[in-house]
Amino acid sequence: MSDTRRTRILCDVDFDKDGFQQGFLRLFHSSHISAYGFLPMPIVVIRNGEGPTALFVSGNHGDEYEGQVALTNLVQSLRPEQIRGRVIILPTANFPAALAGNRVSPIDNLNLNRIFPGDPDGSVTEQIAWFISEQLVPRADLVCDLHSGGSSLLYTPCSLTGRVEDEALYARQLAALRAFAAPVAYVQGRAQGQGGNQTLGGVAERLGIPSVGTELGGAGAVSPEGLRVAERGVRNLLVHLGILPGEARIPAPETRIFGLKGQDQFVYAEEAGLFEPVAELGDWVQAGQLAARLHTPETPWRAAVEHRFARAGFVLCKRQPGRTQRGDCLFVLGSEELP
Amino acid sequence: MSDTRRTRILCDVDFDKDGFQQGFLRLFHSSHISAYGFLPMPIVVIRNGEGPTALFVSGNHGDEYEGQVALTNLVQSLRPEQIRGRVIILPTANFPAALAGNRVSPIDNLNLNRIFPGDPDGSVTEQIAWFISEQLVPRADLVCDLHSGGSSLLYTPCSLTGRVEDEALYARQLAALRAFAAPVAYVQGRAQGQGGNQTLGGVAERLGIPSVGTELGGAGAVSPEGLRVAERGVRNLLVHLGILPGEARIPAPETRIFGLKGQDQFVYAEEAGLFEPVAELGDWVQAGQLAARLHTPETPWRAAVEHRFARAGFVLCKRQPGRTQRGDCLFVLGSEELP
Amino acid sequence: MSDTRRTRILCDVDFDKDGFQQGFLRLFHSSHISAYGFLPMPIVVIRNGEGPTALFVSGNHGDEYEGQVALTNLVQSLRPEQIRGRVIILPTANFPAALAGNRVSPIDNLNLNRIFPGDPDGSVTEQIAWFISEQLVPRADLVCDLHSGGSSLLYTPCSLTGRVEDEALYARQLAALRAFAAPVAYVQGRAQGQGGNQTLGGVAERLGIPSVGTELGGAGAVSPEGLRVAERGVRNLLVHLGILPGEARIPAPETRIFGLKGQDQFVYAEEAGLFEPVAELGDWVQAGQLAARLHTPETPWRAAVEHRFARAGFVLCKRQPGRTQRGDCLFVLGSEELP
Amino acid sequence: MSDTRRTRILCDVDFDKDGFQQGFLRLFHSSHISAYGFLPMPIVVIRNGEGPTALFVSGNHGDEYEGQVALTNLVQSLRPEQIRGRVIILPTANFPAALAGNRVSPIDNLNLNRIFPGDPDGSVTEQIAWFISEQLVPRADLVCDLHSGGSSLLYTPCSLTGRVEDEALYARQLAALRAFAAPVAYVQGRAQGQGGNQTLGGVAERLGIPSVGTELGGAGAVSPEGLRVAERGVRNLLVHLGILPGEARIPAPETRIFGLKGQDQFVYAEEAGLFEPVAELGDWVQAGQLAARLHTPETPWRAAVEHRFARAGFVLCKRQPGRTQRGDCLFVLGSEELP
Amino acid sequence: MSDTRRTRILCDVDFDKDGFQQGFLRLFHSSHISAYGFLPMPIVVIRNGEGPTALFVSGNHGDEYEGQVALTNLVQSLRPEQIRGRVIILPTANFPAALAGNRVSPIDNLNLNRIFPGDPDGSVTEQIAWFISEQLVPRADLVCDLHSGGSSLLYTPCSLTGRVEDEALYARQLAALRAFAAPVAYVQGRAQGQGGNQTLGGVAERLGIPSVGTELGGAGAVSPEGLRVAERGVRNLLVHLGILPGEARIPAPETRIFGLKGQDQFVYAEEAGLFEPVAELGDWVQAGQLAARLHTPETPWRAAVEHRFARAGFVLCKRQPGRTQRGDCLFVLGSEELP
Amino acid sequence: MSDTRRTRILCDVDFDKDGFQQGFLRLFHSSHISAYGFLPMPIVVIRNGEGPTALFVSGNHGDEYEGQVALTNLVQSLRPEQIRGRVIILPTANFPAALAGNRVSPIDNLNLNRIFPGDPDGSVTEQIAWFISEQLVPRADLVCDLHSGGSSLLYTPCSLTGRVEDEALYARQLAALRAFAAPVAYVQGRAQGQGGNQTLGGVAERLGIPSVGTELGGAGAVSPEGLRVAERGVRNLLVHLGILPGEARIPAPETRIFGLKGQDQFVYAEEAGLFEPVAELGDWVQAGQLAARLHTPETPWRAAVEHRFARAGFVLCKRQPGRTQRGDCLFVLGSEELP
Repeated sequence: MSDTRRTRILCDVDFDKDGFQQGFLRLFHSSHISAYGFLPMPIVVIRNGEGPTALFVSGNHGDEYEGQVALTNLVQSLRPEQIRGRVIILPTANFPAALAGNRVSPIDNLNLNRIFPGDPDGSVTEQIAWFISEQLVPRADLVCDLHSGGSSLLYTPCSLTGRVEDEALYARQLAALRAFAAPVAYVQGRAQGQGGNQTLGGVAERLGIPSVGTELGGAGAVSPEGLRVAERGVRNLLVHLGILPGEARIPAPETRIFGLKGQDQFVYAEEAGLFEPVAELGDWVQAGQLAARLHTPETPWRAAVEHRFARAGFVLCKRQPGRTQRGDCLFVLGSEELP
Repeated sequence: MSDTRRTRILCDVDFDKDGFQQGFLRLFHSSHISAYGFLPMPIVVIRNGEGPTALFVSGNHGDEYEGQVALTNLVQSLRPEQIRGRVIILPTANFPAALAGNRVSPIDNLNLNRIFPGDPDGSVTEQIAWFISEQLVPRADLVCDLHSGGSSLLYTPCSLTGRVEDEALYARQLAALRAFAAPVAYVQGRAQGQGGNQTLGGVAERLGIPSVGTELGGAGAVSPEGLRVAERGVRNLLVHLGILPGEARIPAPETRIFGLKGQDQFVYAEEAGLFEPVAELGDWVQAGQLAARLHTPETPWRAAVEHRFARAGFVLCKRQPGRTQRGDCLFVLGSEELP
Repeated sequence: MSDTRRTRILCDVDFDKDGFQQGFLRLFHSSHISAYGFLPMPIVVIRNGEGPTALFVSGNHGDEYEGQVALTNLVQSLRPEQIRGRVIILPTANFPAALAGNRVSPIDNLNLNRIFPGDPDGSVTEQIAWFISEQLVPRADLVCDLHSGGSSLLYTPCSLTGRVEDEALYARQLAALRAFAAPVAYVQGRAQGQGGNQTLGGVAERLGIPSVGTELGGAGAVSPEGLRVAERGVRNLLVHLGILPGEARIPAPETRIFGLKGQDQFVYAEEAGLFEPVAELGDWVQAGQLAARLHTPETPWRAAVEHRFARAGFVLCKRQPGRTQRGDCLFVLGSEELP
Repeated sequence: MSDTRRTRILCDVDFDKDGFQQGFLRLFHSSHISAYGFLPMPIVVIRNGEGPTALFVSGNHGDEYEGQVALTNLVQSLRPEQIRGRVIILPTANFPAALAGNRVSPIDNLNLNRIFPGDPDGSVTEQIAWFISEQLVPRADLVCDLHSGGSSLLYTPCSLTGRVEDEALYARQLAALRAFAAPVAYVQGRAQGQGGNQTLGGVAERLGIPSVGTELGGAGAVSPEGLRVAERGVRNLLVHLGILPGEARIPAPETRIFGLKGQDQFVYAEEAGLFEPVAELGDWVQAGQLAARLHTPETPWRAAVEHRFARAGFVLCKRQPGRTQRGDCLFVLGSEELP
Repeated sequence: MSDTRRTRILCDVDFDKDGFQQGFLRLFHSSHISAYGFLPMPIVVIRNGEGPTALFVSGNHGDEYEGQVALTNLVQSLRPEQIRGRVIILPTANFPAALAGNRVSPIDNLNLNRIFPGDPDGSVTEQIAWFISEQLVPRADLVCDLHSGGSSLLYTPCSLTGRVEDEALYARQLAALRAFAAPVAYVQGRAQGQGGNQTLGGVAERLGIPSVGTELGGAGAVSPEGLRVAERGVRNLLVHLGILPGEARIPAPETRIFGLKGQDQFVYAEEAGLFEPVAELGDWVQAGQLAARLHTPETPWRAAVEHRFARAGFVLCKRQPGRTQRGDCLFVLGSEELP
Repeated sequence: MSDTRRTRILCDVDFDKDGFQQGFLRLFHSSHISAYGFLPMPIVVIRNGEGPTALFVSGNHGDEYEGQVALTNLVQSLRPEQIRGRVIILPTANFPAALAGNRVSPIDNLNLNRIFPGDPDGSVTEQIAWFISEQLVPRADLVCDLHSGGSSLLYTPCSLTGRVEDEALYARQLAALRAFAAPVAYVQGRAQGQGGNQTLGGVAERLGIPSVGTELGGAGAVSPEGLRVAERGVRNLLVHLGILPGEARIPAPETRIFGLKGQDQFVYAEEAGLFEPVAELGDWVQAGQLAARLHTPETPWRAAVEHRFARAGFVLCKRQPGRTQRGDCLFVLGSEELP
């Protein structure tokens, strides 16, 4: 980041001070109904002497909730004397979106995870992205960005990381992925991720900082199972980094890791209609197997359009809403080969 | 219905003609972009001589999908020569809502199932309600209205009927409920139903015609399990009425029937927040048991608000969306006593 | 109208006073930005002693403009000394719709010509309908309601009247229709009109007062040709009633009169798509002749859907907008038989 | 009210029980995001034995705040042992509007104080009106409805009542008006009120129950001066009714009472523009005196349009927003003669 | 274009493969209701060996339809064996706008033809512009961008090109303009175009590639006459380039070519009002001649505002909608001198 | 400004011509309803020979009105023969916002005073900012930007300037501030201004041109007192610059000047609620003094949240709307020390 412009956001907490600090990132947003107001984005820093720093982010998409609950619980349970080093927690990263329960910001309609590294002089979401890129990520030894499927997708609870080019960095990411101890995980190949390099993970990669993420459920709800995976993963990452002692680790079976690298792992709707899924999360499907039917009850005498999987794979994710447009993603498969 | 006003909707099909007829209810809706246009609501009538009439309705709420798929499949599979009597199928009852995947009509913002018997001179949804009340229900020997939880609720797939005052009618409804063969069913007490007597079932009751309904899933999706329950139920009702021969019946275990008659069977949010369900569909819970926590990630250092069940019961239904307002319904319990 | 409730609208003009009066109907509409404000609907009364009363209305649909311009010009040119009797002019009947250039009211989304006789205690449009029904129509010896095709339709300039049951009234309407001297006219059969009896003409019929209307162009524009037809017609009606002297009559060729009584005179879109009209206004078409193609450029390799006329007729009207939904009206034909 | 239909709203409190009770009116509103939810409208009943009943309402218009604050403070300060009889407090009458800070309901766009007595089967605001009309007003010996100018008007803090036909009722209303002890008050003549008989006061009059109201400030803000007037008035009304003992009365100078009975006491904008008030609240103005200029900065070389008062009077109220449409009310004057 | 960033859009077709290929440009647009979905923009490539490449674009503005129909018909009729070289067809360039029948994108509210060359990392419309600029235009020997007047303007069917500085390029553009064989054409002077250099034509000019355009009708409709001009022009351009053989040429009278270079060729509304055009398309008007009247039916006693042409010229274009604001363009004239 | 791109806005006036010129900045904005239209932003230039240039701007925020009225009056009263030099007047700088009475543009939702220096190729507001930055500010010897509190704030009428680094420039600004002769003024410290360096004043500073501003009232209204301060200030600045002769100066008491440099001079809402201000404009408050209570009438039994001033100061500004969110600014204090 050779850009030397500085954030306009004021920050209530001092990242270098020991103890438990809570406060707000004050993002000034001058609107018709609040000319001098700020958006009060909560931030918590817990520090106890020198040591590694973990950065936990949730609410990057406002309608992905398990991470928000897990980090809220962490804020209420983790105390400085339990740790060594520092934990930075940003539970509602796209704050206006999180308040609204929306994937994207209701203020500027931007998807935070598609506009990194952001712009300190830009719109609300661009300023948030810049603050995270400039002020938070560079302070971290590990970035953990907790996602779920949101309103339109449902995932089997899993963790994920990217297949970065730097092998040492990749090894550290894989180690963190295993430490997180989700039942399932996947590794994203380069350029296959929907967000390209404009994600939070992309920022971390450019700075050489390891990052892992999650997809914990979705359908616009809080999944109790996804929440348990999140809480265990967060705690185990703190152990993995040495911020919490080893005995704090919550044991779990080994993670099953899949790869995600080709468009043939996605099933997209070929026509508009009402989506009936035929496969379920966690199924292992074969190439050519029926994936979905798209119905048109507004013309009930018209036959449904059948969709089939293009290749074999593990069903990581499926679309939630019934009403569907051509081009909407219906399924995502994990493959056995890593990218 | 002493009101003698007539519908303004034109109907393509002749209810008294034998054979398979498909067409539209033409509801003229004069708008800025279509001054003389009509809303083309599909309707199908399948008739083979004298005999009983079954009326199947779905899309009463536009975002409740399993019934819409089941009736679409019925339109494509049922042929006059297979039946005796008549089957009337209205798969997208609140047509504008069904097209939009919305509970209520995007045109007049009305909830069809809260405004029966409607008004022939009223707004779009009021005209639909009137047509169903005046033209369809009186022709039926049984009304089956296929609902699901919609976008905001998720039900364990079940069927339901109302505890009408007329004992003979109630007996016929219970018989139909059992014939439907859903794994779970419930009987609604008088005046406890959310829609009071302004529902489609209320219209049928006033005409002395038996009616059953369903709640087949929800969360804005098509549930494969709910779809199977719907398809079996629709077929078995046709057998029950004698429209299909007995050998067409799809066998199923006996239905477990609960009662729903008191506000203490509902859990409502006491504060706004992010809803974490603690019980699951199909659980049997005890009075005082923890039902939910409401979190506030925008103030993560604030403790969650706990909600408890007021009485014992079977979890029929839970809220889907995370973001929740005070007054939103979180759970509905079935009780062992029928109303 | 046995309803004895009175309008809440204040009226600046005295209908029984001689001379030229201009002012407003003051329709109080208490809104967030104007708690005590009124909608200032202009009205003009021109009176010179005893004699017949003509009521001219335009802006019944806010996006139908030729009548609004013709009546605006009439207000600026007609003077009491030129007439005998009374002329009442309401140029922007659905005032909020006319200001917005919209078919329906932006305040309550109602179509004024579908809700007559209205309601004095109702919403804004319902109050307007009631004032016209209770205060204006009963004072008139002839009602002339100037329409055009609006934003979604384009008409060959024509006049029209309804085939009322009362033969004497019908004869007076036909005489007025011929006096109007449009090049083309049509007579609407009972129950075929899109607005049924909830139109301004329906109010006049119930009071036994003759009424004529127009369709002067459309496509959301002011048609110079339609404007000329309107200005001649308005003037000739005043001569016909004896309000203006005979020498004021503007000569014109005889009107060609068609009938409109059956749904087979309408062509509706069978599928959504981009509407290419194949016939033109003023054509005489045959049954089975190609009327339109509906294209789908978003799937350009899919063949267009062809639509054909169901019967022979004179093309009175065609749809304007390209993008079209199933059920939108594409063409209206006049037939040689009157209803 | 010969209508015997019953409200669908559930009520948490028992009006006949002694002590302090708080709870909600549960107005079920089935929406896309909350199919079974209710709107939780707070209500408080404080009762201590037999005695008179005072009904206090605020938030009838959601953006009128002084009454809402005064009643909130009353809920927190008044205890059963201090009173004799009963006090019913409904601080946010149009609940969705009050939450939104809006004059009218964001759900159905209705102005609660223009639709009394409402409809138990109608839209949200109609159901609220009906509950107040059927369940609250009949229980009261005095109704006090606390208004302010809202977002579009600013009032000098005052109280008001209507010039009802029944002389005994009028005398009781005048006595209550004086007891309220606002510095200024006015009496509304029949049919001059902006809301006609569709207001809460109209309901009370039809039941023969005295009512008083207020206009305490406005401009969308909480006025500290208006709040003091409200709190004194509420307390003094309780003394006046004998619910609080005489020593609780807060002394105040005598109220100056004006009349409001003619349209000439209102100044309305004759053209659209930017409103510069020339008179101020509390001024005594003369007929012909300059009231306002309407400017057009978008055409700055065009002269302002001057508006003058039509008669002498006391400036009770002025418009707040600069941008103004023809028909918006700019000033309201009190006259020396009562109606 | 020294910018070396690459598009994020996936492309189904291989531009270098022989034969007929159809598919989609997959523009990933992560929204609340479709987190991983893409916008399916259809593209067709028809290739038969080496030879020149023609690029045809329509739907640059979504409500301009004749080009969309002409290219849809071309897709269905042109086959590889008929041609030599390559034809690339993009019928719905601003895909979301074309689906909506809107000039600008309903997603980001951008006008595609005002933001070239676009941005590969930008919003939806910016990504489309970039793809066309980077992937399509550089492959073309001739760019043909088919416009019409859209919803707000109506053109006499014509073709057009720009007066580029490079004389050789200009000569090639004039030759293509004549080959297109529209009855009327015009040449735009530099800096007079409404879109400046941010248009698709501007991109082609900077790459030294000849481009021609059209204005084929408008008023939001499909014009049969404009469609015939478009289909003949597209075919004749293919002959002109040698992609189709000479005998495929459709003969037509010579094109009448006008110039468009000064603001005095535009008539703009000086006040808001209802626009009555006095001149018609295809008229030759004189300086000072009456062009339009702007009426105000909401104040019908106010005189119309007359507008006159500032210079002589041929009426190429007029405004369609009646309701008009100050600054709206009412007429565009062609002049006899080319720029 | 090393950027050499030129504005796309056409300008009707010649800045170098003597006399009184009025006209429009023509900002072409191609929309669905006006493809070739421009936004007609009025501009006036009054010039009489060589001499200094004053640039007056209002409507930078569209809902700040006193400056708009003062400059409208100036346009109508100031004549070339009265002055020496040049006066440039832009009364509705953010023209679409001013027409709408909105702080930000309804077209692109941008706040003009947060995006300077703008972009000649950008959205509507960005193009306006660029025109002012490139064409107007460089021509000025003094820039005066007339603000008020707008819809959400209310200021005691005051003038202001920035504490620029360049001491000579600062001295000139202070001299202009005193010449303006408002009763109160304040000096903004660096980086404390809500708009940072993206304001109109920031542009002037970078060009070394002195600028002053105002805050003249607010609450969405025209304040007569603020208007008087504005008209005196504008006139006195013209005298100060030597454009008007000394005798034109309107005498006034000396200005009381405060400093504004720290976040502790702002009071922000800590919770959402209904804002009751306890201090008033013009008060001198102490640290720890009660500033406000935030009430929740929707939960009236919940205690109000009290807010206190963090330091002593003069109340320059308070929030207007009752309904308030966490982070909204409630008060701004002036301090005795200048920055």
